[in-house]
Amino acid sequence: VLLDEANLRAYARGCAVLGAGGGGDPQIPLIMAQRTVAERGPVSVVPVDELADEALVMPCGLIGAPTVALEKVWSGGESERLRERVEATWGRPVSALMCYEIAGANGLLPLVWAAELGLPLVDADGMGRAFPQMDQLTMSLAGIPASPLVVTDARGNTLVAYAVTNAAAERLARDAVASLGGVAAGALYQMSALDARRAVIRGSVTRALRIGEALSGADDPVAAVVAAVDAIELFEGKVVDVDRKISGGFARGSAVVEGVGENAGQLLRLEVQNEILAALNDGGVVASVPDIITVLDAHSGDAIVTERLCYGQRVRVIAFPSDPAWRTPEGLAVVGPAAFDYDFDYVPLGVPAAALAP
Amino acid sequence: VLLDEANLRAYARGCAVLGAGGGGDPQIPLIMAQRTVAERGPVSVVPVDELADEALVMPCGLIGAPTVALEKVWSGGESERLRERVEATWGRPVSALMCYEIAGANGLLPLVWAAELGLPLVDADGMGRAFPQMDQLTMSLAGIPASPLVVTDARGNTLVAYAVTNAAAERLARDAVASLGGVAAGALYQMSALDARRAVIRGSVTRALRIGEALSGADDPVAAVVAAVDAIELFEGKVVDVDRKISGGFARGSAVVEGVGENAGQLLRLEVQNEILAALNDGGVVASVPDIITVLDAHSGDAIVTERLCYGQRVRVIAFPSDPAWRTPEGLAVVGPAAFDYDFDYVPLGVPAAALAP
Repeated sequence: VLLDEANLRAYARGCAVLGAGGGGDPQIPLIMAQRTVAERGPVSVVPVDELADEALVMPCGLIGAPTVALEKVWSGGESERLRERVEATWGRPVSALMCYEIAGANGLLPLVWAAELGLPLVDADGMGRAFPQMDQLTMSLAGIPASPLVVTDARGNTLVAYAVTNAAAERLARDAVASLGGVAAGALYQMSALDARRAVIRGSVTRALRIGEALSGADDPVAAVVAAVDAIELFEGKVVDVDRKISGGFARGSAVVEGVGENAGQLLRLEVQNEILAALNDGGVVASVPDIITVLDAHSGDAIVTERLCYGQRVRVIAFPSDPAWRTPEGLAVVGPAAFDYDFDYVPLGVPAAALAP
Repeated sequence: VLLDEANLRAYARGCAVLGAGGGGDPQIPLIMAQRTVAERGPVSVVPVDELADEALVMPCGLIGAPTVALEKVWSGGESERLRERVEATWGRPVSALMCYEIAGANGLLPLVWAAELGLPLVDADGMGRAFPQMDQLTMSLAGIPASPLVVTDARGNTLVAYAVTNAAAERLARDAVASLGGVAAGALYQMSALDARRAVIRGSVTRALRIGEALSGADDPVAAVVAAVDAIELFEGKVVDVDRKISGGFARGSAVVEGVGENAGQLLRLEVQNEILAALNDGGVVASVPDIITVLDAHSGDAIVTERLCYGQRVRVIAFPSDPAWRTPEGLAVVGPAAFDYDFDYVPLGVPAAALAP
């Protein structure tokens, strides 16, 4: 599969759907990707099983608060600095890039960087969606170290963290990114393809592409998305309240949707920490992490990233199952409701098990 | 010159005198140094002019708020991690360590690390005293980059900053150290001996040793220190007020000394930011950065680091000239009163120019 000018927009729309509102707004990265691919040529998407065992895979993306990222100007030297520091530590060349999260801008920036560096993009990611923290990746579940964790800003300052645990890496990365101005380009969890084969979520890039292509050609875009990801529709309504602030390097807050149609007279509250973590109504929890809750524009079917949520938007809220890795006890310990200090238990979405496969 | 069990205590006392109250309390590092030298053998002190041109010099010490350092436990792996990261970036071995500041604990920790690594210590430093910031080194005046700036904590977490300016390196280092718990072992301004010869303050280690030896054998220890550094005595009295807080990675505050003897009825106020930056009385500024203001115990002649200042201490406050590099317009721009937001001009201490040579 090639990502090129013809399918990039569809891919971006698919990344937004998978992101649970996170990963950063894809609009500017999409323009960057279109321009870079026009100049440097398309990026080839390779299955992790087709890489040589010893090939060095560099997961990457932006790290920090996406609200800040909206305003951030990228200088173009980020990919080269990330690669330089990774190769200096590993003593061998990077063979392929990978999205650490298949979500919003973070589905696109690694593609921009892959085009800049002339490298392929692995058809995989480490979340299958977006999560707020750098230790919430399937690679961490698989025992791959997050370090060396490289972050670099648009001015050319770079920090490399070598942490003794992935939790420490998350904390150091968060502080490092705050120090660099709130958002930075990052590379983390580098691994051989041999390790990647037991540590990543396969097929993420082509899945995003399929979702976007279904969306692009559809008469009923929302229905097309629902079908493409086997989602259940939670709510239809209008955004009537948005509360957000930047705190500790995260965008935290909530949004309230007032029902229309079948949901007239009801309210749905969305809890946000960069991503949408839970949806609640009067009766309690409707859906929660690790399952994926995404807000779609009621007309276009496009997913709305959390930093773009605003009063008056007509939306349809959908939810669909996370990767099975997150639904295990080990996965839930890292990304279940309790990991975000919620006091309710995880209840899997009522969808057939067959829908769990991508 | 060798630093060994016989002269380490004298060296530590000399470092404390040169430190302007900064560099951290030397008591625990002195015990570490005595034990390490007993186990690994003495450390040889080499003039920078005797190193081969291409020899890689690694300035190092603790970075952060010395008040925190008092309580910090060092694990023993710091020197190896600093060297490992420096050598990985430079691609060649470190030939010698250097105190980045000849002051308090920071005169001793590089010696501990030199003993651990089996390397010599260069008879030089980058301040001739202590200053609060990592861009206030003679190496920065000489155009040597602070980066890669390596900091590591006792748990084994390491951060490496590659900054585009030394001011950015200072800011990143400050945040990185805060992220690691307030104080960390650091290495910065690595350079070849060829560069060091135009960038460092020569003779700092042997100067500290001479001061300590004068102090150790003297009947009148304060007089011995005054003679050894060509100081003027500013004030004799009792500490009656100490105000300190940790802010932005610095220990900031002030201390007030109430005069006795010739100074009866007078007050002297000492302004502190890790180090003593200025001494003021009713008539205005008595002494200020970059000149060195040190508080001595009235009886023992030992210098008191700022984090040990407390109510009731009988003290004598002395001042002596900084290295000539700091008294130039370029030097004063970096470490003169205005650099610390004071609104008074620098007035050099009234001592003969001959006293400026070490």
